[in-house]
Amino acid sequence: MVELSRGFASDNNSGIHPAILKAIYRANSGHCRGYGDDPFTKSAVEIFKEQFGNEVDVYFVFTGTASNVLGIRTLAQSYHTIFCAESSHLNVDECGAPENFTGCKVLTLPTPNGKISSDQIEQYLDAIGNEHQSQPRIVSITQPTELGTVYSIKELELLARFSHRNGMLVHMDGARLCNAAVSLGCSLRKISGDTGIDVLSFGGTKNGMMNGEAIVFFNRELSKNFKYIRKQGMHLASKMRFISTQFIAFFENDLWIKNAQHANEMARILAGELAKIPECTIVQNVEANAVFAVIQKEIIEKLRKRYFFYVWDSNRSIVRLMTSFDTTKDDISGFISAMKELIA
Amino acid sequence: MVELSRGFASDNNSGIHPAILKAIYRANSGHCRGYGDDPFTKSAVEIFKEQFGNEVDVYFVFTGTASNVLGIRTLAQSYHTIFCAESSHLNVDECGAPENFTGCKVLTLPTPNGKISSDQIEQYLDAIGNEHQSQPRIVSITQPTELGTVYSIKELELLARFSHRNGMLVHMDGARLCNAAVSLGCSLRKISGDTGIDVLSFGGTKNGMMNGEAIVFFNRELSKNFKYIRKQGMHLASKMRFISTQFIAFFENDLWIKNAQHANEMARILAGELAKIPECTIVQNVEANAVFAVIQKEIIEKLRKRYFFYVWDSNRSIVRLMTSFDTTKDDISGFISAMKELIA
Amino acid sequence: MVELSRGFASDNNSGIHPAILKAIYRANSGHCRGYGDDPFTKSAVEIFKEQFGNEVDVYFVFTGTASNVLGIRTLAQSYHTIFCAESSHLNVDECGAPENFTGCKVLTLPTPNGKISSDQIEQYLDAIGNEHQSQPRIVSITQPTELGTVYSIKELELLARFSHRNGMLVHMDGARLCNAAVSLGCSLRKISGDTGIDVLSFGGTKNGMMNGEAIVFFNRELSKNFKYIRKQGMHLASKMRFISTQFIAFFENDLWIKNAQHANEMARILAGELAKIPECTIVQNVEANAVFAVIQKEIIEKLRKRYFFYVWDSNRSIVRLMTSFDTTKDDISGFISAMKELIA
Amino acid sequence: MVELSRGFASDNNSGIHPAILKAIYRANSGHCRGYGDDPFTKSAVEIFKEQFGNEVDVYFVFTGTASNVLGIRTLAQSYHTIFCAESSHLNVDECGAPENFTGCKVLTLPTPNGKISSDQIEQYLDAIGNEHQSQPRIVSITQPTELGTVYSIKELELLARFSHRNGMLVHMDGARLCNAAVSLGCSLRKISGDTGIDVLSFGGTKNGMMNGEAIVFFNRELSKNFKYIRKQGMHLASKMRFISTQFIAFFENDLWIKNAQHANEMARILAGELAKIPECTIVQNVEANAVFAVIQKEIIEKLRKRYFFYVWDSNRSIVRLMTSFDTTKDDISGFISAMKELIA
Repeated sequence: MVELSRGFASDNNSGIHPAILKAIYRANSGHCRGYGDDPFTKSAVEIFKEQFGNEVDVYFVFTGTASNVLGIRTLAQSYHTIFCAESSHLNVDECGAPENFTGCKVLTLPTPNGKISSDQIEQYLDAIGNEHQSQPRIVSITQPTELGTVYSIKELELLARFSHRNGMLVHMDGARLCNAAVSLGCSLRKISGDTGIDVLSFGGTKNGMMNGEAIVFFNRELSKNFKYIRKQGMHLASKMRFISTQFIAFFENDLWIKNAQHANEMARILAGELAKIPECTIVQNVEANAVFAVIQKEIIEKLRKRYFFYVWDSNRSIVRLMTSFDTTKDDISGFISAMKELIA
Repeated sequence: MVELSRGFASDNNSGIHPAILKAIYRANSGHCRGYGDDPFTKSAVEIFKEQFGNEVDVYFVFTGTASNVLGIRTLAQSYHTIFCAESSHLNVDECGAPENFTGCKVLTLPTPNGKISSDQIEQYLDAIGNEHQSQPRIVSITQPTELGTVYSIKELELLARFSHRNGMLVHMDGARLCNAAVSLGCSLRKISGDTGIDVLSFGGTKNGMMNGEAIVFFNRELSKNFKYIRKQGMHLASKMRFISTQFIAFFENDLWIKNAQHANEMARILAGELAKIPECTIVQNVEANAVFAVIQKEIIEKLRKRYFFYVWDSNRSIVRLMTSFDTTKDDISGFISAMKELIA
Repeated sequence: MVELSRGFASDNNSGIHPAILKAIYRANSGHCRGYGDDPFTKSAVEIFKEQFGNEVDVYFVFTGTASNVLGIRTLAQSYHTIFCAESSHLNVDECGAPENFTGCKVLTLPTPNGKISSDQIEQYLDAIGNEHQSQPRIVSITQPTELGTVYSIKELELLARFSHRNGMLVHMDGARLCNAAVSLGCSLRKISGDTGIDVLSFGGTKNGMMNGEAIVFFNRELSKNFKYIRKQGMHLASKMRFISTQFIAFFENDLWIKNAQHANEMARILAGELAKIPECTIVQNVEANAVFAVIQKEIIEKLRKRYFFYVWDSNRSIVRLMTSFDTTKDDISGFISAMKELIA
Repeated sequence: MVELSRGFASDNNSGIHPAILKAIYRANSGHCRGYGDDPFTKSAVEIFKEQFGNEVDVYFVFTGTASNVLGIRTLAQSYHTIFCAESSHLNVDECGAPENFTGCKVLTLPTPNGKISSDQIEQYLDAIGNEHQSQPRIVSITQPTELGTVYSIKELELLARFSHRNGMLVHMDGARLCNAAVSLGCSLRKISGDTGIDVLSFGGTKNGMMNGEAIVFFNRELSKNFKYIRKQGMHLASKMRFISTQFIAFFENDLWIKNAQHANEMARILAGELAKIPECTIVQNVEANAVFAVIQKEIIEKLRKRYFFYVWDSNRSIVRLMTSFDTTKDDISGFISAMKELIA
């Protein structure tokens, strides 16, 4: 067995939480009908209803990009506009999948901290009814944002109300929603469906699963044809039980809370230590499991060789440090020591 | 742990082979860079080169539909035609994903045993150069076919030569290629790249993996932009190592051969037993791990309740019985007994 | 001015009827708001309502392919199936535009005379609700068919009723609908909306216009977003008045009837003359303005040089002869003489 | 005949130049083969070669949106990025057709005067080779810009060189290219192909034609499959001769120059008059046939009733006034008088 070192590149650089791997073992017995017609998927769906409300409709897919794109595809026609933050995964990290699969215009809004507001969208609403222009339809927000900040419940409610009032629907990219819930001390439902959002891409992979994301519809009218969209979207798993069993373990004994809490706590500690280093500046509020900091250009490359992480903005020398369910205090102290050493 | 009974519905109703599950466990240590930049993926790619030739280019995705659609997308423009058997998975079982994601016309050829021939395509070649018509470009074949028959090497070579002579490329849906290789007693390479085909969708899931399919390009000129197509196709796995490690175990100690050999052997035994029952007729050659048989309408439903399987053609009362790596002789004798009992 | 000879290749080889050209002149004065917000378009829409019923919603585009594809796009999602005759323009002559622009599966039905029936579709209806398969949604028929035959009102009503009963909608490719109306002695409305069809692609170009096709929705619920689809479909004319004015003239003094009547009459005469030639066999009922006949291979090429026309089926030596609003009796007698001469 | 008043809304609110209408009449004789296989199209293509160079490949379509979208589609794959000005027609006025038909990401660059520069694109080039991001491929510029400004030859050359050096191709939206050529006192070729751009959408409609746009490829390698893209793009005209004959007249006796010169001259005069009114400010250089001016909010609506025009930016009270080949000095003096009257 190769022992791989841990870094701060991304929470998806971590492996599988032992309890989730155990659940895969547990489900590996005999035959199950394929494509989700199995007892594990039935149980997992029930658990999602407990977490998000009885009226939700939930579907599993393999990747975060698929959960964003297919969720939105269900709500939008090709002549619609998707509003999102310029920094959003949807815009920057999906190789144009949203445009290609939905046909929609992706209209980006600049934002220093990853959060968008209704004011920014308002100016585009005079396109409504004008056949020359893509029609405003989807407001896509990321919770927590790509910059590690968290929308307050109030902010979410305002965005949802504004969107609905203007004939739009709200999509939430919740690849790390657990980290936001823990940060706000709320249930998952409270910061998603209860705020008025319409569809949620809910992430498992970044919080300890091997693979598996869920698309949660808070309005069954919207999802009635989703099963065709998922299959046409190439994301109907044949051995679905192995995604479902992971989600069962994910919610068992509040594992999702423990994992997210740990990751957030590690980020806070890391940020605290970094703040003590005069050569380093924290540039975003640390509200989930990401730390954005300015580090001297000269030491970045050397540091990356010992603890891998990504440069977010090379011009401004900003790096992104992500913590995950398996980050240890030793990882942090090792990282801080290495940094101090390099600075000195 | 729920003990689930085995049936003959599909080889994807089976679970994970223990050696493959062990490999997942083995890879679950520390952090790895995401998206395939990890040692497991490097090793898996090397193994594919050993199996398919040093010049191949290989990529992993989650589902068979994705491996078919994305492989073809890479070779075709939206104004192209894809020729395939009417019974092909591409045509029947992918909810229109090929049309939607490639934009191409899917032109189906009728075939009693799942195999297509160049004669059937020849009549459509006068479309070449005619701007009013989709241009012939892709010949997609399934090996073994959806009807459990196997193309001979000669047949594959002829199709490839015909296709290339006419400016077309050949895609092979090899979701069960291992079963065909074992059936023909050949290496995987011998019945794919060596016959002249251009791109192969190679299946792992149906032969004992949890999830994972490979797209194998036999010409690197064709695949040079595939990485963008996979990402835009929503199938770039973040924790790629867990697909790769499965493929490593899949090829270790010839596991793929053992699994496929077993499944094929079980199909032969099952077909042999069915042939002894006068009320039952085998309607396709049993060349891989599928048995197609006419069973009396009256007993189908009752039998399905004890051993789940699918009706292939309800008008003609034809059922499909698939065996898999974990089918046992007891499953077969139990099934045959149940059937005899119901007939009597 | 080059005097070009007339042939029997297609009714779109003819030019512009003088009354329609005059209408273009008439509209060429001063400025009009673009994109259809002009008095000519308003008048033309009113005329369509007179012809097709007050409740219709009508839009103009430039080409027949656009009118088919955009009309269907409005009614279908990418996971839907379009049923049509194998010989339909939609399938054969639009370079895959339906698949590419709608994402739908085009499922073709074989038919000797261009007409499809509900029996042929029935066998595919068990796909309904099965997420693995494209969902039956559109039945597209051509009136008159590509083979010059005409659906009776009864046949249309049965198809529409069958389609609606099964959750499907009916599209009619009426590129030559005028010829069918004249053939059946009915109003345009009687053989389209009144039979229950949902959307009609209505042709002007082949019956004497310079360019211009109309998409007629018989149910405004279906068309409410069509204006965006037309614009996104690249077919919103800026100087729309020049399409509209053509349609005004098209309906003025029953010009459409006179043109279609003449073309049909010429086809009847041509067929009558051909029938007298023993070496020639008429192979389809001549119900509109097309004649399908077997002509000896040896004389086809020579004849084509004097009167251009298309070979429909080279294996069976079947040619297609189309008449148009400007075909003359002299054209026919010249053609017959030339043929006799070549045979002799 | 309704006598319609002229305004300043758009150059597409004008009608057909008499010489062009005459050319339509001239082409209306006898039969021509459809879809461009006719003598008028052959002549028109020859004329384009005279204007743009012998090596060009040219195709006609009906609308400006089609010429932009289909031209770009030919050069780009769905995983590519199109860079363009935020104010470009491509981004604002095509209802998402570029995204829908090409699948590409449309990445907009802010620009006060409609011109983009290589500096703005440079920052996005680190996406090259990164599979998570759409790949930089198309730089689309508008000449003259939507703001009535004109790129200098130098600026065009720099953009083309920059683009090619970075593996990108340049598309020029030349819906009003004639106005730019006249403005710079250059041939059409000099300000398009000679500067290094790869594909040009060349407009006829806005400079006196009834309908017709051309897509000019300066590299035949790029256009070899364009005929399929045009047909699949629903823009292959059956009675093509009537577009071609318009283009013949368009270039005969330098009509295109006369028309564009007149329109530009009218814009200069209009701007000159407006500059004399203290309550009015010209906010863009008047380099082609558009005038952008701040006019008091109170009088805009009243003025629009007498001379129709569009408000460009309601917040800043900027209006756009377009002149065309048929704008008269009386129109201008009438407009100025009306304005003064309303101010007073």
